[in-house]
Amino acid sequence: MVGVDLGGTKIRTVVATAEGEIVAGDQRPTAAAGGPEAVIERVVGSVEAALRRAGASLEQIVGIGVGAPGPVDVRRGAVVMAPNLPGWRDVPLREALRQRLGVAVHLANDASVAALGEHRFGAGRGSQHMVYITVGTGIGGGLIIDGALYEGAAGGAGEVGHMVLEPQGPPCGCGARGCLEALAAGPAIARQAESALGGAAGRPSLLRGLAGGLLGGVTAEMVVQAARQGDALSLEVLATAARYLGLGITNVVHLCNPELVVVGGSVAKAGELLLGPARRVLRQRGLPLLAEAVRVLPGELGDDAGTLGAVALVLRARQM
Amino acid sequence: MVGVDLGGTKIRTVVATAEGEIVAGDQRPTAAAGGPEAVIERVVGSVEAALRRAGASLEQIVGIGVGAPGPVDVRRGAVVMAPNLPGWRDVPLREALRQRLGVAVHLANDASVAALGEHRFGAGRGSQHMVYITVGTGIGGGLIIDGALYEGAAGGAGEVGHMVLEPQGPPCGCGARGCLEALAAGPAIARQAESALGGAAGRPSLLRGLAGGLLGGVTAEMVVQAARQGDALSLEVLATAARYLGLGITNVVHLCNPELVVVGGSVAKAGELLLGPARRVLRQRGLPLLAEAVRVLPGELGDDAGTLGAVALVLRARQM
Repeated sequence: MVGVDLGGTKIRTVVATAEGEIVAGDQRPTAAAGGPEAVIERVVGSVEAALRRAGASLEQIVGIGVGAPGPVDVRRGAVVMAPNLPGWRDVPLREALRQRLGVAVHLANDASVAALGEHRFGAGRGSQHMVYITVGTGIGGGLIIDGALYEGAAGGAGEVGHMVLEPQGPPCGCGARGCLEALAAGPAIARQAESALGGAAGRPSLLRGLAGGLLGGVTAEMVVQAARQGDALSLEVLATAARYLGLGITNVVHLCNPELVVVGGSVAKAGELLLGPARRVLRQRGLPLLAEAVRVLPGELGDDAGTLGAVALVLRARQM
Repeated sequence: MVGVDLGGTKIRTVVATAEGEIVAGDQRPTAAAGGPEAVIERVVGSVEAALRRAGASLEQIVGIGVGAPGPVDVRRGAVVMAPNLPGWRDVPLREALRQRLGVAVHLANDASVAALGEHRFGAGRGSQHMVYITVGTGIGGGLIIDGALYEGAAGGAGEVGHMVLEPQGPPCGCGARGCLEALAAGPAIARQAESALGGAAGRPSLLRGLAGGLLGGVTAEMVVQAARQGDALSLEVLATAARYLGLGITNVVHLCNPELVVVGGSVAKAGELLLGPARRVLRQRGLPLLAEAVRVLPGELGDDAGTLGAVALVLRARQM
């Protein structure tokens, strides 16, 4: 099985067994500025390279799973729109890859695919009702219901990041205001840290050194790093984002009553700095029947949630 | 089949066919102040009266469905807690009724049961993925996924009313703040109308006459009635509640990507005064792939959503 995680900056491909054991892999820049055709060629190149490293050929594999950003129309196998892939509008990615590679291709939204990965091979193994939330440059999610990925009427279920939590809050990339993504994703954390720093004459913080004194140079990774070293400003900023994440989790729990919420993505590497305050909000705000029935855990697969989830997408198609 | 809708003020029972045709019914006050034992006896009395009117006996029926307020633990068949039924804490209602009536009893949360009713016999017939929202004294909901009621890990899925939409908003009966229920249910509408009236010397409004000049005498029904007659203050208050309902619907649509949202309950009798602004918020705030895939419709069963849903609960159990 081959799993591809198509991101805005990187294409990651693995060749793996049905048990989720990675045999070989490939990683290369997406070079998204080149547009859909060029990116599709790079995906083809990455799949061929990974297979070569695994000593396998296209004839030997049963299918390729692909997780792609933005809303994905699963019926048409098309990427509807991807803010971090310039020029991608209604790109029939599934058919384009099938034609070039000559094998069955299975396409879904990247966060749904990562949900499938954590459910099949990671923190969600064996769970019946699970919600996956990925916190990185954006916030996405996926729902596992009755042990299977639930994609909804148009393949768009699990858009946790565009849940409105502050109707008059900061603008979101989607055009609305106060979405969870605009309050708790990486760019929001970086922006809030910059604002809390308050310029050259503002509050002291380890972030000044980490960002090299550059205005606009703070990233969410730096905030996490400084928070780990006890930096008060970074701890505050991260706790604020974590409380919004906790509100988002509370709303999801009220709606879906899962037994498990798994949080992955690059910002989730902050671990308990993010999950601790989020769990406290859930306990404070959640209805006891629901809040007590759910565990909130970090993902186990790290950067491989997407690629192994894409492998799980192939396995799922074969079981249907 | 017998369906019972156990509410805070009324017990409603119907005897109906598998096609949802009501043969006979009974309605009586819950007299909730009497406590669980007395209320259970009144449910038994209501079932017996409805059967008598239908010319049927307990031996002839295949089961009784019951929708009960508050979180319901479906595994134990118990009402966990019901704010409008004093003294109800972990009441094993299913077993209590089975012992007294000698037939199979099926119990679920009242909003989940109403969702099942609208899906089987009402506005949601034939839909695969549907969300039901009831707006009355409280706000509840139920999810239909893959054509079946989805109850979640603890039977509590669909708690739309306790989705937080204004983290610093008005206090909610559940103990949290800014829940949809605290912003858009009947009591919130009445309270906002009272506040907008601003006492005896405040704004003119038809509500003054409807409430008989009594402070604290405004109800949500009066606000709907005055809004229908073009009362500006009532229209504003209703539109504010409707926009919050629209935000709640937007969040549900982002998470669950249903093809249909059905809105029922006593406040939903306001019809387009409520659904119009709610749909506009969904169009403005929703991701197009998801917002365009969903219709928002009024319920078709009115006050019978709960009783016919309880009948559907019996049918569902027989099909399992």
